[in-house]
Amino acid sequence: MSTFQTVKGFRDFFPEECARRNYIFDTWRAVARRYGFMEYEGPLVESTDLYRKKSGDEITNQLYCFLDKAKREISLRPEITPSLARMVTARQRDFKKPIKWFQIGPCFRYEEPQEGRSREFIQFNADILGDSSPATSAELIALAIDVMLEFGVSADDFIIRLSNREIWNTFLADKNIAAEHMQTFLQIIDKIERARPEETEKKLAPIGLTLAEVRAFMAAADENHPAFAALRENLTARGLWQHIRIDATIVRGLAYYTGTVFEVFDLKHGLRALAGGGSYDKLCALMSDGHVDLPAAGFAMGDVVLGILLKKTPGAQMKLTEALLAASSIDAFVVVADEAQRLHALAAVQALRAVGIRIDYSFGSQKVGKQFQAAEDRKARFAIVFGAEYPEVVIKNLVARSQSSVPAANLVDEVQKLLQEPAIGPLIA
Amino acid sequence: MSTFQTVKGFRDFFPEECARRNYIFDTWRAVARRYGFMEYEGPLVESTDLYRKKSGDEITNQLYCFLDKAKREISLRPEITPSLARMVTARQRDFKKPIKWFQIGPCFRYEEPQEGRSREFIQFNADILGDSSPATSAELIALAIDVMLEFGVSADDFIIRLSNREIWNTFLADKNIAAEHMQTFLQIIDKIERARPEETEKKLAPIGLTLAEVRAFMAAADENHPAFAALRENLTARGLWQHIRIDATIVRGLAYYTGTVFEVFDLKHGLRALAGGGSYDKLCALMSDGHVDLPAAGFAMGDVVLGILLKKTPGAQMKLTEALLAASSIDAFVVVADEAQRLHALAAVQALRAVGIRIDYSFGSQKVGKQFQAAEDRKARFAIVFGAEYPEVVIKNLVARSQSSVPAANLVDEVQKLLQEPAIGPLIA
Repeated sequence: MSTFQTVKGFRDFFPEECARRNYIFDTWRAVARRYGFMEYEGPLVESTDLYRKKSGDEITNQLYCFLDKAKREISLRPEITPSLARMVTARQRDFKKPIKWFQIGPCFRYEEPQEGRSREFIQFNADILGDSSPATSAELIALAIDVMLEFGVSADDFIIRLSNREIWNTFLADKNIAAEHMQTFLQIIDKIERARPEETEKKLAPIGLTLAEVRAFMAAADENHPAFAALRENLTARGLWQHIRIDATIVRGLAYYTGTVFEVFDLKHGLRALAGGGSYDKLCALMSDGHVDLPAAGFAMGDVVLGILLKKTPGAQMKLTEALLAASSIDAFVVVADEAQRLHALAAVQALRAVGIRIDYSFGSQKVGKQFQAAEDRKARFAIVFGAEYPEVVIKNLVARSQSSVPAANLVDEVQKLLQEPAIGPLIA
Repeated sequence: MSTFQTVKGFRDFFPEECARRNYIFDTWRAVARRYGFMEYEGPLVESTDLYRKKSGDEITNQLYCFLDKAKREISLRPEITPSLARMVTARQRDFKKPIKWFQIGPCFRYEEPQEGRSREFIQFNADILGDSSPATSAELIALAIDVMLEFGVSADDFIIRLSNREIWNTFLADKNIAAEHMQTFLQIIDKIERARPEETEKKLAPIGLTLAEVRAFMAAADENHPAFAALRENLTARGLWQHIRIDATIVRGLAYYTGTVFEVFDLKHGLRALAGGGSYDKLCALMSDGHVDLPAAGFAMGDVVLGILLKKTPGAQMKLTEALLAASSIDAFVVVADEAQRLHALAAVQALRAVGIRIDYSFGSQKVGKQFQAAEDRKARFAIVFGAEYPEVVIKNLVARSQSSVPAANLVDEVQKLLQEPAIGPLIA
């Protein structure tokens, strides 16, 4: 029993949750590196002005913002993109274009915690700066797809909803509607699936549009629309177009997206979006007061909804379970059956660890049965027994229930050899 | 040029610094796992009361503490130990003892930034709870030593300064000095090496001690002192005692240590301590208002001083450089020499990545020379050229300056095979 609690919306990562978190990190990192992305990280705290510059004053409602002891206005970061824009625009000449960078780390938003949403969450961000071609969006969408597949989430389990804000520009231009209505209009589209039709109709009227004509346009905006031609060709060549569904209602809430926009959705559980992103060609110029004008695109995937999906998806669950077992197990447990051999056992512990073998043992005198129990608890594959027969050491295979004996001098070599054999259980052996 | 700066004392991790950070994380993690430690993580934000409970009201001077929008007093964590005590005491029945846990993550202190000290820093923490024997301290000290060795910092480069607060208890008892003077006395000892002798003498007088008798005791407290017998036996059996220097001035500033205390110091550059720790048997009881009484010991190692040492130590620098190269390089760069083959090249990019090979390529049409330049910039080992000879694909070894040709259908197998060969430069081949 503890006197203290976690702060509302914050999380403890006990070893099992931490191993789950690490598995998610490792998977994100491995796939991003295959794609030639380089990892970076920004600070967890930035000046509040950085976020105001990007998102306007209202953003502070959702920020953990405060004054430090020198009265600086600072905030826990709610997202990484403003830091990325700050970093890249500060040193853009140092990096070859396109810049392909990814980042993994916590973000903070002062929102009401609920399923799939906590006040602290971890994001994977992948961004490409310095290239505005559809190949950039294709590379990012392919990465998002491959991340999902790597987690064991299959084509039956998720879909990429894809759109391009420019199709709505064209639509409004065709209807002779002023560009100033764009933001309002996109906000209506963003909510069109959840809002009642009468409500949407009422909001469209002042712009001079009807729900029927919007719906007709949406239905026509399919994968044959020229806005998607280059992306389609690219992702088809990679064998990934099957994961795409054109969906003109995807506009992404944030004002700063400029072209392609996409979200990753699960197909079976009605969860929130797993990831979302798109191109944001004007952000670097905005954040650098026009000094650095770099086109950009990127997406973010959070750990919370993803974690829920992994638990609900059998193929993903299996990979996760394997990873958790690997993280929580050790290679061998050294059993001191005869206390007179403890110092020899300690020397062996050290020698085995020195070659990278994961070893645990009991710190003090304990009955042999208890030590074997500890070996099982730690999911050790082998027990290495130092008893009266020393300098002979007994190696027990706790999976195959077999055993062998080896002179202490050969122990490290022998254990290394045994660990390279596949682990076979007693039923198979 | 960017309009914004990092907040004072906070750090950007551009790709090279991030790779250096990841190398430090990976090394900490690998060695801790060899020792059978399990990873956990606490929240970055805790209630300010948690830190007051452990360290008293003055701690708030060094805290990033603030009120959230619901007027909760919360703080960015200055260290992990209070969170660890909170977590373990809340669920101690769920875990077999001894609990061997480690953690890696950022901490925050509002201090004046200077060499080796920033306001945000990353710590590696290893703790053992539920066992108060000297074997616990031995395991932690062995871990600290092996971490240093794994970084390529050798016995010539670092030392563990070891002491035990109990030797001072005995000293004071022998001198018939009341236990209430212990904390004041330890603070004098803590500063004895940096303070002028007259000053120390003046501070010792009210307790009824002279500098001469303190110095005489310190000189006598060598490795033969019975307080170190069990530790010495244990670490000698592991071949690690050579790294230890008994130093009675090591008491650790923090009030909560109860027995063994140690610090890791470099031997050549006069840097601040690289790590420090000891046993703190009463903290769990304090943090749980007496509900859970678990002995404990642990240490923390920061990334800042360590990072400086790695750069200054040739053996460590070499390992670091290798790790940075591995992190920044890719396996192969796909060169599109004939744009008519781009879609075939994209299919190959996808197929190669699918088996885990790190691949990059140019997003749009580019002169072949520029693409080869990009391959070199990305430190690719191979260039895979899609030209007019397709479906034959040319594989150029950019290290050995050799080349071969392979049908596209066999490309993935062939590249996998080539990557398993050791990389040999042109001078050797």
